Amino acid sequence: MDPATFRAEFPVLDRLAYLNAGTTGPAPQRALDAVRERLELEGREGRSGQAYFSSTIGLANSVRAGYAAVLGCDPEQVAVTGSTTDGVNTVLSGLDLRPGEEILTSDEEHPGLLAPLARARRNRGVHLREVPFAELANEVGSSTRLVACSHVSWVSGQIADVAALTGTGVPLLLDAAQALGAIPVDVGELGCDYYACSGQKWLCGPEGSGCLFVRRDRLEQLEIPWPSFASLADPGRPLDFEPAEGAARLDHGFPAGVRNAWALAALEVLSAAGWEWVHEQAATLAARLAEMLAERGLEVLPRGRSTLVSVLPHHRDPAEEVGRLAERGILVRHIPGRDLIRVSVGAWNSEGELERLVELLTD
Amino acid sequence: MDPATFRAEFPVLDRLAYLNAGTTGPAPQRALDAVRERLELEGREGRSGQAYFSSTIGLANSVRAGYAAVLGCDPEQVAVTGSTTDGVNTVLSGLDLRPGEEILTSDEEHPGLLAPLARARRNRGVHLREVPFAELANEVGSSTRLVACSHVSWVSGQIADVAALTGTGVPLLLDAAQALGAIPVDVGELGCDYYACSGQKWLCGPEGSGCLFVRRDRLEQLEIPWPSFASLADPGRPLDFEPAEGAARLDHGFPAGVRNAWALAALEVLSAAGWEWVHEQAATLAARLAEMLAERGLEVLPRGRSTLVSVLPHHRDPAEEVGRLAERGILVRHIPGRDLIRVSVGAWNSEGELERLVELLTD
Repeated sequence: MDPATFRAEFPVLDRLAYLNAGTTGPAPQRALDAVRERLELEGREGRSGQAYFSSTIGLANSVRAGYAAVLGCDPEQVAVTGSTTDGVNTVLSGLDLRPGEEILTSDEEHPGLLAPLARARRNRGVHLREVPFAELANEVGSSTRLVACSHVSWVSGQIADVAALTGTGVPLLLDAAQALGAIPVDVGELGCDYYACSGQKWLCGPEGSGCLFVRRDRLEQLEIPWPSFASLADPGRPLDFEPAEGAARLDHGFPAGVRNAWALAALEVLSAAGWEWVHEQAATLAARLAEMLAERGLEVLPRGRSTLVSVLPHHRDPAEEVGRLAERGILVRHIPGRDLIRVSVGAWNSEGELERLVELLTD
Repeated sequence: MDPATFRAEFPVLDRLAYLNAGTTGPAPQRALDAVRERLELEGREGRSGQAYFSSTIGLANSVRAGYAAVLGCDPEQVAVTGSTTDGVNTVLSGLDLRPGEEILTSDEEHPGLLAPLARARRNRGVHLREVPFAELANEVGSSTRLVACSHVSWVSGQIADVAALTGTGVPLLLDAAQALGAIPVDVGELGCDYYACSGQKWLCGPEGSGCLFVRRDRLEQLEIPWPSFASLADPGRPLDFEPAEGAARLDHGFPAGVRNAWALAALEVLSAAGWEWVHEQAATLAARLAEMLAERGLEVLPRGRSTLVSVLPHHRDPAEEVGRLAERGILVRHIPGRDLIRVSVGAWNSEGELERLVELLTD
């Protein structure tokens, strides 16, 4: 894949050094076009009738298959959701958690994981224990019912030692917000039980998109926590509460055509470039950025081969520094409470953009 | 308001007699334009940075205020959701329901209400009792913890006797999927406790939109059932689980700019026409349709002053009849299991469309 050709898919890059896909990814032009086409259909044909419902269901199936391809699993193991948080809530609300059972988590987790964990503590009486990210596997104990942590830390870009975690035999829920689309993922090889993902970050999908992988042998252990018409095998007999086939029973939110048209087109842009190339390009650029920053004397947090680079701004207020960079056309973010600037590097970024960032951070 | 001017807001009406807003409303051109404008912004400016987040939050606030205006309440009593089902799940998961408590519902409820009720029966051990829609208030007993039913029956277009229901003193959850936007609503006057609404039907919003009214004195009794970043007073301290102000703590789904731009523009089209006019025009047209059908000897189900007209097709299979009408450019729906054709009549419809429908149903 030619980097310049790939970059040209994303109109925002004409104007900005967009380095914040860890919050929300750049929107591909082809995804915007797909939404415009869908709007045309919804406006002109009306949002009803056989043809309309067929196209809506077709899009939903294609999006599920698209997520499954990136995850490395079968579509029936994928629930289509609106966010990573939806996936986390689905697992925590669906499990029969008991008072006194422990959930182990880390000190580098996002509120999107911690808020559902806090609810489980409040209303299920589970014991919540936070340990350093790198220590998770060592801290698993006999009362640990679940480990819930990031695959890639949103704070530092460190990558969890998933082999050590699955080696403990305790069920594992991974928050994949900074992983799916960013680094190579094969949920079968990872061996995790649940994998909750965002669609709008590294998959460049619309706001309010995402997916949840549930390992086949775990599906029947999850109650349907937020049932709708679509959760049921036979919506004509809702009181039977017989679940629909596969992880689709856990789908969250309406399968809106606008959302799915965007999500699907974005997945197609990325997979057409080749996921291997996308991952390798992003990891190489991110590693190069970390190296340049360190060479210029800035402190970069220990990280893995991920797409996030977190740096301590040199004697400067990080929020102000983020604002100053934005005025110069470079979009990054500040991690509140940690005095960090986090840079998200995608395959769509260029070495030139990274050099400009380094210049400004060290001027 | 001039009916022809109002009709011209909805492109689908150029081609079709669109009579299925009870499933999904017609999309106003101005809403489609608002989404196109938003897409332009998301593509060009990038989905990040101060200006972007301000516009996203601004849209979210405006949509909440827009729903509040239609509901007749304050914005802080409104949670923005993705569907009526989200609202129902929020209430049923948020209440501290106990085994043996009774939830009373009717025999004319939609799977979107019944599926969450079935879950409450399964995992909270509540007793669920279904009674005829018109008998609900009489059937409230000493163990009834909650009445959960439609404001307007999706089957028949009957309207619940809300005064009789609130008169029982038992908390009342209304499924307003066929009510908000369709008939005059003032949640304060109604006196219900919870009012769960769809955005994509009679409010002509996008798929995956809706709202939930929670009466002020009921808010603290609801736990946050699906917490996210946005549910919390201080997302920097998620483990404190301190709820955000007002019903916004119960917001469901990402406040996507695309969704909210559409929802807001659609609310503006309807409120600019005048809600009083919209409601009166739709009710008058629907009553006229029911009258014409009865005059031609078709059996129309007993209904209220609503926007739904359900009719038994004369010696014909209702699903086939719906298909035959669709081929002739008239979109209505079949209610499965009931052998009914349901016609949804909006202020955007014309008497000419209704006459064509009557001709075809009786030819």
